[in-house]
Amino acid sequence: MSLDPLHLLPINGKWKQDITDWLSEDVASFDYGGYVVGEALTDATLYCKQNALISGLPFVKEVFNQCGIQNIKWYYKDGDYINLNKEGKVIVAEIHDTPVRNILLAERLSLNILSRCSGIATKSFITITKARESGYKGIIAGTRKTTPGLRLLEKYSMLVGGCDTHRYDLSSMIMLKDNHIWSFGSITKAVQAAKKAGGFTVKIEVEVQSEEEANEAIEAGADVIMLDNFTPNELKIAATNIRNKWNNVSNKSFLLECSGGLTLENIKDFLSNEIDIYSTSSIHQGCGIVDFSLKVVK
Amino acid sequence: MSLDPLHLLPINGKWKQDITDWLSEDVASFDYGGYVVGEALTDATLYCKQNALISGLPFVKEVFNQCGIQNIKWYYKDGDYINLNKEGKVIVAEIHDTPVRNILLAERLSLNILSRCSGIATKSFITITKARESGYKGIIAGTRKTTPGLRLLEKYSMLVGGCDTHRYDLSSMIMLKDNHIWSFGSITKAVQAAKKAGGFTVKIEVEVQSEEEANEAIEAGADVIMLDNFTPNELKIAATNIRNKWNNVSNKSFLLECSGGLTLENIKDFLSNEIDIYSTSSIHQGCGIVDFSLKVVK
Amino acid sequence: MSLDPLHLLPINGKWKQDITDWLSEDVASFDYGGYVVGEALTDATLYCKQNALISGLPFVKEVFNQCGIQNIKWYYKDGDYINLNKEGKVIVAEIHDTPVRNILLAERLSLNILSRCSGIATKSFITITKARESGYKGIIAGTRKTTPGLRLLEKYSMLVGGCDTHRYDLSSMIMLKDNHIWSFGSITKAVQAAKKAGGFTVKIEVEVQSEEEANEAIEAGADVIMLDNFTPNELKIAATNIRNKWNNVSNKSFLLECSGGLTLENIKDFLSNEIDIYSTSSIHQGCGIVDFSLKVVK
Amino acid sequence: MSLDPLHLLPINGKWKQDITDWLSEDVASFDYGGYVVGEALTDATLYCKQNALISGLPFVKEVFNQCGIQNIKWYYKDGDYINLNKEGKVIVAEIHDTPVRNILLAERLSLNILSRCSGIATKSFITITKARESGYKGIIAGTRKTTPGLRLLEKYSMLVGGCDTHRYDLSSMIMLKDNHIWSFGSITKAVQAAKKAGGFTVKIEVEVQSEEEANEAIEAGADVIMLDNFTPNELKIAATNIRNKWNNVSNKSFLLECSGGLTLENIKDFLSNEIDIYSTSSIHQGCGIVDFSLKVVK
Amino acid sequence: MSLDPLHLLPINGKWKQDITDWLSEDVASFDYGGYVVGEALTDATLYCKQNALISGLPFVKEVFNQCGIQNIKWYYKDGDYINLNKEGKVIVAEIHDTPVRNILLAERLSLNILSRCSGIATKSFITITKARESGYKGIIAGTRKTTPGLRLLEKYSMLVGGCDTHRYDLSSMIMLKDNHIWSFGSITKAVQAAKKAGGFTVKIEVEVQSEEEANEAIEAGADVIMLDNFTPNELKIAATNIRNKWNNVSNKSFLLECSGGLTLENIKDFLSNEIDIYSTSSIHQGCGIVDFSLKVVK
Amino acid sequence: MSLDPLHLLPINGKWKQDITDWLSEDVASFDYGGYVVGEALTDATLYCKQNALISGLPFVKEVFNQCGIQNIKWYYKDGDYINLNKEGKVIVAEIHDTPVRNILLAERLSLNILSRCSGIATKSFITITKARESGYKGIIAGTRKTTPGLRLLEKYSMLVGGCDTHRYDLSSMIMLKDNHIWSFGSITKAVQAAKKAGGFTVKIEVEVQSEEEANEAIEAGADVIMLDNFTPNELKIAATNIRNKWNNVSNKSFLLECSGGLTLENIKDFLSNEIDIYSTSSIHQGCGIVDFSLKVVK
Repeated sequence: MSLDPLHLLPINGKWKQDITDWLSEDVASFDYGGYVVGEALTDATLYCKQNALISGLPFVKEVFNQCGIQNIKWYYKDGDYINLNKEGKVIVAEIHDTPVRNILLAERLSLNILSRCSGIATKSFITITKARESGYKGIIAGTRKTTPGLRLLEKYSMLVGGCDTHRYDLSSMIMLKDNHIWSFGSITKAVQAAKKAGGFTVKIEVEVQSEEEANEAIEAGADVIMLDNFTPNELKIAATNIRNKWNNVSNKSFLLECSGGLTLENIKDFLSNEIDIYSTSSIHQGCGIVDFSLKVVK
Repeated sequence: MSLDPLHLLPINGKWKQDITDWLSEDVASFDYGGYVVGEALTDATLYCKQNALISGLPFVKEVFNQCGIQNIKWYYKDGDYINLNKEGKVIVAEIHDTPVRNILLAERLSLNILSRCSGIATKSFITITKARESGYKGIIAGTRKTTPGLRLLEKYSMLVGGCDTHRYDLSSMIMLKDNHIWSFGSITKAVQAAKKAGGFTVKIEVEVQSEEEANEAIEAGADVIMLDNFTPNELKIAATNIRNKWNNVSNKSFLLECSGGLTLENIKDFLSNEIDIYSTSSIHQGCGIVDFSLKVVK
Repeated sequence: MSLDPLHLLPINGKWKQDITDWLSEDVASFDYGGYVVGEALTDATLYCKQNALISGLPFVKEVFNQCGIQNIKWYYKDGDYINLNKEGKVIVAEIHDTPVRNILLAERLSLNILSRCSGIATKSFITITKARESGYKGIIAGTRKTTPGLRLLEKYSMLVGGCDTHRYDLSSMIMLKDNHIWSFGSITKAVQAAKKAGGFTVKIEVEVQSEEEANEAIEAGADVIMLDNFTPNELKIAATNIRNKWNNVSNKSFLLECSGGLTLENIKDFLSNEIDIYSTSSIHQGCGIVDFSLKVVK
Repeated sequence: MSLDPLHLLPINGKWKQDITDWLSEDVASFDYGGYVVGEALTDATLYCKQNALISGLPFVKEVFNQCGIQNIKWYYKDGDYINLNKEGKVIVAEIHDTPVRNILLAERLSLNILSRCSGIATKSFITITKARESGYKGIIAGTRKTTPGLRLLEKYSMLVGGCDTHRYDLSSMIMLKDNHIWSFGSITKAVQAAKKAGGFTVKIEVEVQSEEEANEAIEAGADVIMLDNFTPNELKIAATNIRNKWNNVSNKSFLLECSGGLTLENIKDFLSNEIDIYSTSSIHQGCGIVDFSLKVVK
Repeated sequence: MSLDPLHLLPINGKWKQDITDWLSEDVASFDYGGYVVGEALTDATLYCKQNALISGLPFVKEVFNQCGIQNIKWYYKDGDYINLNKEGKVIVAEIHDTPVRNILLAERLSLNILSRCSGIATKSFITITKARESGYKGIIAGTRKTTPGLRLLEKYSMLVGGCDTHRYDLSSMIMLKDNHIWSFGSITKAVQAAKKAGGFTVKIEVEVQSEEEANEAIEAGADVIMLDNFTPNELKIAATNIRNKWNNVSNKSFLLECSGGLTLENIKDFLSNEIDIYSTSSIHQGCGIVDFSLKVVK
Repeated sequence: MSLDPLHLLPINGKWKQDITDWLSEDVASFDYGGYVVGEALTDATLYCKQNALISGLPFVKEVFNQCGIQNIKWYYKDGDYINLNKEGKVIVAEIHDTPVRNILLAERLSLNILSRCSGIATKSFITITKARESGYKGIIAGTRKTTPGLRLLEKYSMLVGGCDTHRYDLSSMIMLKDNHIWSFGSITKAVQAAKKAGGFTVKIEVEVQSEEEANEAIEAGADVIMLDNFTPNELKIAATNIRNKWNNVSNKSFLLECSGGLTLENIKDFLSNEIDIYSTSSIHQGCGIVDFSLKVVK
């Protein structure tokens, strides 16, 4: 049985309303261009113009659906890697026998979605691929530094690109940073407070600056320990020491995460299989877009 | 430092808009009563008329705020237990010098909220208290069987009553039941599929019918094992066997949950400190309400 | 020609948007379970597990519709009384050949709706049945003590159960209580003020504490007189006296309502065919739920 | 104690959100004019330029409030009749020391509201005044032929002008017309069906074409009888006959309404004190507007 | 190729949601009439009862669509002029085999839309026709004095009637009036400020009181010059002088607009082909409605 | 008088609701972190950590406002260029005496906005600066390739950075491309169709592939001519020829725009003062972000 990322999106939900709102953002009142071209039936072709890992199709399909575009043949699906041929563009989909004003209304929004989603999926894919080539077997994850209103699309594209979304929002895994901790005077007490609210279903991560803090957090029952802003060397020493300390302690299960300024360029220096997760916003924030175009065939 | 459940509610959020909608639900067009009484300043008293653990004040405060009721003195806060005096009613709050139409507009909605939230908090409190009296030290949790549109208020009231919310929704902890599992042919493969989507931040629970299934789920890395519809005796034997099997295995950390038909009446038979969590919708669904009233003082 | 309560719901309206919102309440972001099970076609069965008067199907049908569940066979309709067989569960509907993730998404919300609506319809039915058995021919009505956001479902279920909704909201029938009246100094003046706003289309009810007040209200033109918090004996005497006084006065048409602390247990003491309406929130508030389940057939 | 129509509007409700939406309708994206004028403090004057009965101030006040205009002196209130002086314009309000961009943003929407509301209130006032001058003591009412989205403002303005709103919507008083009746074969059965749904709180009106139908409707318990499209002469004869027939029947209370093509010009021919209500959309639909202007004082 | 005004409306957009809201405005809770009539299949006929230029069909079609009315035969389209026959009513459309409750739900809203849209289109058409008969070849335009929430319908109907919408809102063409100008001390500087925000895509109009101001505005680069409140004679002289002055200046392109108190009655005095645009709210504000009706055929 | 880009944003509008929605996107249900830290008063500092042109403050101020953060001292405003000092971070604002949970709730959203807006403003500023250094005096403009839901923020940031927004949406300036033209057979006819809908207030741009097409478009009355995908050399020749042809034709005013694959790297080759506008999505799409942080001061 194959897994399809499309199935992560609820069948009916706010994301479909968002697409209606985004269509409205592009036509505040009259659709002058739609009036000029009318409803003559036409064909159109969706091209990808860069090497890229494609992402965003469920959202584009909903744009097409809301614009009354039904007759579509898709040649790729999310997660496929597109290698440009010598013409410099690859056909992603063909639309047939569709009123031209419907296509022109859907054009800009669908391309704006596709270019951004694929940009994130591609950067995620390049990053995890580079890590795998270095022998790293763990997780590369994103962050909450997503574009306002687009978190679902961006977290989805991280998954499509082979990375982890990290926690979705403040209501998901609880992350305790130093300013959560100082109110209580100790990591232990802060973790207890977090457990009181989150209960047994929500994981707790603690951001630490030292081995000592890491050990206190593990003792207190944290699920994930984030080693924040360690140098590559410090990181590896700390990870080894912590692993050794807890190796034979039963019923203490924890993950180690490294975070802080990681990029495609420097991540290799930090990679170690003693670290379970490397998190970096570089896979989705300011990561560039992929160029697509939609051409009406006269 | 004291923890206040009010701080669980985001300062600005959809729940405030819900309250606006609920006010509109009670006045589709004209406020005829408000027209008749006008804006003469008056006082009013909020009474509780049953022994109860109070819950819902942040929501009531927002109702009052949206109705322009500012001058309030509160005598209780969420989580306080109210013991009726011989008069059969206790003053919860006093409103002073407020236009009477504002009070009458807020009256019904605030009572409707308070009676339902306190009903859940009180039932949760009674249940956890009974469990503690039996020597149980673990968790009593609710379920997703909440009233449509009121999950935040109801999960909040479980917390106020001393119970656990269990997972908030389908986007929180992943729960694998038998129909999730048969697609893959094995618990192990289903857990792997779940991890692919949920990553390292989302816990995974597996509902099992036997010790064997429980052990396969633990081996596969499930965080919580739900022993579903075991008799009290079967439950205790299974829990002991599972605990013994994994006792000395490092880095395997799991919780055991018991679920299925638990009520205030029968829960005592099931309680065992080898089970971490007992979950039951009886603490919040069909659990009765608490009687409050708001009286205008002429 | 038969009347169908479904026809009380407007074909397109806010209640359909509420269902979209309630689906979103259960999946804040990703549908992890849906991802795991995918879109394999399956069957499922909706069971009722208690003796009950069923209510809520139009809302459940809309949940199914929004979740893409089309292929359904229904064995019962709203208002049918379900008698459990010896198996302890009765098939309410069968779903066929439907993607499993669609069913799992719809499951919890549809059951949450059905259990609450049927709880109210069943309690309403039991109460009116008991009154009929006592020889009472009038009306049993609910109140505005409904769950925030669910008034339509709850008032609808009172109707399905054979009771009356009482006024829908503050913009429906005007109800004048003592604090509406004191602003004006007399019931007569308050009724006049109410008529000024409500005009000829909106009924006026006056809550009274004595025969004298009742007579003043009738004289002033009130449509309904609520005798509030009378003992059973006082109630019957007052009703008889009032009826006698106005019996031969033409063009004075009024109804008598009894309210205040009525329950299934005590209502029999109050019943009298000289009272047109008994209103009680006990038929819908804190009245318990009916147990339904939805089982996927592998 | 004086009654204020403003108190008919709920303190917080959908109508305030409508005003936000209407402001957005006038600025789809950037406020170019606001950018040019900036936030220099200025004064402005709101003028009325026709003889008129003013209506709409609660809505205009909310526009001003949402645009940050606080410092206002009002010279008139809803229901005041403005007689133009020789200058041809009368000061309705003065705004002081307010950022000019705030005033320009509020200008068009507040005038668009005021001109329409006052147009309806003025036409309503002229119509009821003319009826009173003819000795008519009953009710002049509007209809449901209101502007989509503006029913609250328009029904409110009918009240301000001294007329009755008639039923607010399809969920208010039930009106049975011939196509409601034919499904059942008789008025009596249709009224029974209506009572089943509307219960005791909702009035029932029946539209009739003859005395016989009127009498059947009264017998069946209708609250209001609409004599539809009778000539003035037929109307008066029918009204007298119906009144005589039911004059001494106790507990039968009904109102007679005349409807169909009434205008300011022809209404006098129809007026008779045996008819309780004359309903006409001419008081609010296509009834003209009142000219207001808002001038910034440099 | 023919142009269809329907194509001005985006396929999916806020206007469709508005229609859902307007349906809800007419049924706050229960559809009592729909309950009484049920779903018996019936036919219905939409009549026009005045000579009129029809407008509003795309909106009515969406009302029908949302009410499940599919089986419709249309005899007219927007922009057609309907001449009444001797029966005094013309069939606009026929609905067949449709549940009667669906038709009754759609009835009032669709007529309310159609009567208002056609009122504006008809008045626009009469006005432009009168201008053409006087030999005027330019543009008659409306204003922003539209009904709150209905701007799209009203601007659309101006277009259907043969007039121009004028600027849609404050985010469209920038209009500089005297209070925009005094902040800067000169027209020239105000135009420069406007260009800074609006850039090259947004036109700039300047309202002027004299030829001198007009010339300054043209020099500064204004696209449209509004001659405000000139007498007919002054207007023609000013227009001629301005045209002459700029006749041979290359790359200065401007339009002249006349505004201020124009009505169907007085516009002829002002018309001159040296003026490009006459703008007047008389074509859409307080302009009367067209009478339509929808009759169910038993 | 100084112009402030903040004044481009309407005082009350959809953009404020968007910010509420974006806050909700980051807290689907409970604010666990807020619960842990509570409401102890604290200070916090907003730092910029790169050389950048700052943009987005009105939106951040609204985030702070909605989160109850009032006590802020701002050191920079939109459009200021921040030069990093040797510490590598510059203080943008200081928050004082504010509950810590309020700050943590606002933190991520305000940084996500600021980093994206400033990224666009900075890239816009760098591009226009480079063009000015090359002696170009005209306009650099963006495109409609903006992030769904963020067009207002992104177009605003182009303006802050010194560039032009280009048309806001499909309801602004009409752009005719080849697929708009083929329906009509000629540019002339397409421009006529566009004028019919857009009237005199909306500009018309025509995308052309040759001098001949450009001349036809100018003759037809287009306001802007887009020379699409010309090489630098072709572009300059075409521009000179077109300018010469129309130089002495009065009342023909047009702008020339160059578009197609322009980037910061290649734009210099294309620049010529005979071209009025260069449009490029490179100033806002995939253009990178600016790094900000918000640090709570214990």
